[in-house]
Amino acid sequence: MRMIKWENGTVLTPDQTKLPLEEITLKLTTVDQMAKAIKTLQIRGAPLLGAAAAFAIALSAYNSKAQTTIEMLTALETTGTTIKEQRPTAVNLFWATDRVLNMARTYTGDVDGLRAAVIAEAQKIADEDAAQNYAIGKNGAALIEDGDTILTHCNAGELATVEYGTALGVIRAAWSQGKKIKVIADETRPLLQGARLTTFELKRDGIPVTLITDNMAGYVMSKGLVNKVIVGADRIVQDAVFNKIGTYSVAILAHEHGIPFYVAAPKSTFDLTCKAANVTIEERKPDEVTHVGCQQTAPDNINVMNPTFDATPLKYVTGIITETNIYTKEHFTKFNPTFPL
Amino acid sequence: MRMIKWENGTVLTPDQTKLPLEEITLKLTTVDQMAKAIKTLQIRGAPLLGAAAAFAIALSAYNSKAQTTIEMLTALETTGTTIKEQRPTAVNLFWATDRVLNMARTYTGDVDGLRAAVIAEAQKIADEDAAQNYAIGKNGAALIEDGDTILTHCNAGELATVEYGTALGVIRAAWSQGKKIKVIADETRPLLQGARLTTFELKRDGIPVTLITDNMAGYVMSKGLVNKVIVGADRIVQDAVFNKIGTYSVAILAHEHGIPFYVAAPKSTFDLTCKAANVTIEERKPDEVTHVGCQQTAPDNINVMNPTFDATPLKYVTGIITETNIYTKEHFTKFNPTFPL
Repeated sequence: MRMIKWENGTVLTPDQTKLPLEEITLKLTTVDQMAKAIKTLQIRGAPLLGAAAAFAIALSAYNSKAQTTIEMLTALETTGTTIKEQRPTAVNLFWATDRVLNMARTYTGDVDGLRAAVIAEAQKIADEDAAQNYAIGKNGAALIEDGDTILTHCNAGELATVEYGTALGVIRAAWSQGKKIKVIADETRPLLQGARLTTFELKRDGIPVTLITDNMAGYVMSKGLVNKVIVGADRIVQDAVFNKIGTYSVAILAHEHGIPFYVAAPKSTFDLTCKAANVTIEERKPDEVTHVGCQQTAPDNINVMNPTFDATPLKYVTGIITETNIYTKEHFTKFNPTFPL
Repeated sequence: MRMIKWENGTVLTPDQTKLPLEEITLKLTTVDQMAKAIKTLQIRGAPLLGAAAAFAIALSAYNSKAQTTIEMLTALETTGTTIKEQRPTAVNLFWATDRVLNMARTYTGDVDGLRAAVIAEAQKIADEDAAQNYAIGKNGAALIEDGDTILTHCNAGELATVEYGTALGVIRAAWSQGKKIKVIADETRPLLQGARLTTFELKRDGIPVTLITDNMAGYVMSKGLVNKVIVGADRIVQDAVFNKIGTYSVAILAHEHGIPFYVAAPKSTFDLTCKAANVTIEERKPDEVTHVGCQQTAPDNINVMNPTFDATPLKYVTGIITETNIYTKEHFTKFNPTFPL
């Protein structure tokens, strides 16, 4: 199912903050609406954020009354800057914005042509993401054995992508091959994408899923209940994988229990120009930690940390499943000449 | 501050399910009320459960219209069985129940004397717990250095004991010695004893505390923000420490980061007659995982695991701080001839 659609100047996408209790489709027609939806995580998941960024620029082009390509390009550049400011960590946001803007900067036709080209490029990014996820699924499914139980963290599913999912794409592909697998989903505090979204997707697709709190991951591993871990990624740098907070802990637990730890992500997630130390980790508002929806869970005015992502060093990663191939430890020295750390 | 008090046939204790948003004192006058308060975690924390079990038997004696010691003992035995059925893992519940019943079984005076002796024994268990916690605090504080940041999981504080706390007793003792320490509290899903109780206690005492979600523990360790981990225990067996779910994960993370991992608990928590494999881990209701207070966090009818405790093998434990001394790896072979595992 398409998680983001362009229909004549309107972007349609589910409001992910309301799932699973309410299924609401957002109908976004302006850049400001897109920016707000990205900022507030109504749209989230690294690959989906890439498509959303591209469609935000498409909306800017669609709504522009510019008479010249220069004038339109100025508006698109402003939109690009706005969109990039919404989330600092997911590289897909930057990658997709730059891809559309680079196309626009070198476009040689007239203003109507530029408008059409920008919209087409955004659509192409979305279509490519969908296709990549099916390819990731196919590549990754080869690693999954009949009877495996796979632990996943956060939501790297259909809802994090344009279609099919990355980590959950691998699970879907293995399931569709007839492998009788089960999934254990970490709830993924603070925003509970595992409890709210991963369980929702898998239950709908009939794939057996069991929900645990994040601090049960070690327990289920110690009981021999987990054969593999598969997660998504927000940015893969020379020496580490950035993904949802808690991924690093899960990777260490998997390592200690001798359980393979895989990352499934499109190659647009790679940012091999930098190392983990150079990446800004988004710190979100304290009330995400001190509240769960309507429920306050801690005293007023308590000090809180709320990093949204963490960095898992490549030494804890068994393999990175992409649309073209699976990178394993033998490849990691190409990303990072000092590997193994 | 005393967390459980006996006043003329009434047991006074805070309702821990309502904290920190409401401070309500329960006034319990019957065994049934005590059993329900233990079952529903209005009273929780291994050492406090011991005192509560003893006071439940005291209530049984206080309310008994028995004319003979044999008749009263029958009632006390029934109460003991009821209380032990409420929670299967915390050994203090069994230990305190058996201690009072053993005293009663060998009591040689009349029925009024037995009634008074049972109440006195319960009070003595409570007083001893308080004194033990101050001793644990003093022993443990010697391990804490000025400037340390200590991560703790769940609540092993005043609210888990009769007074002062075990893990938080160590922190209080170090603080009272003028050591400028800080605490990082895991929120401790599903029931959030860290978010609700540990932050509440420490904030009230002016000890700096920062709340994190459980899945941030690895992150804060990787950033060098944690010098020591101290947790409580619900049962210490030959080869492992049972404590709140998630303790095992924290211990592995501490091990991987070279951070000392301490357990603070009275010797009544030791149950060296058995190994981890023999201990029943309480599995609680799924809605503790699928809801946080009023807020549903997962789809309806989703499969859930909800183990309340996990077992941390002694190989991950740097030391066990008790009221008499600190047990370290050199002692663990006395608990368990096969250590190191």
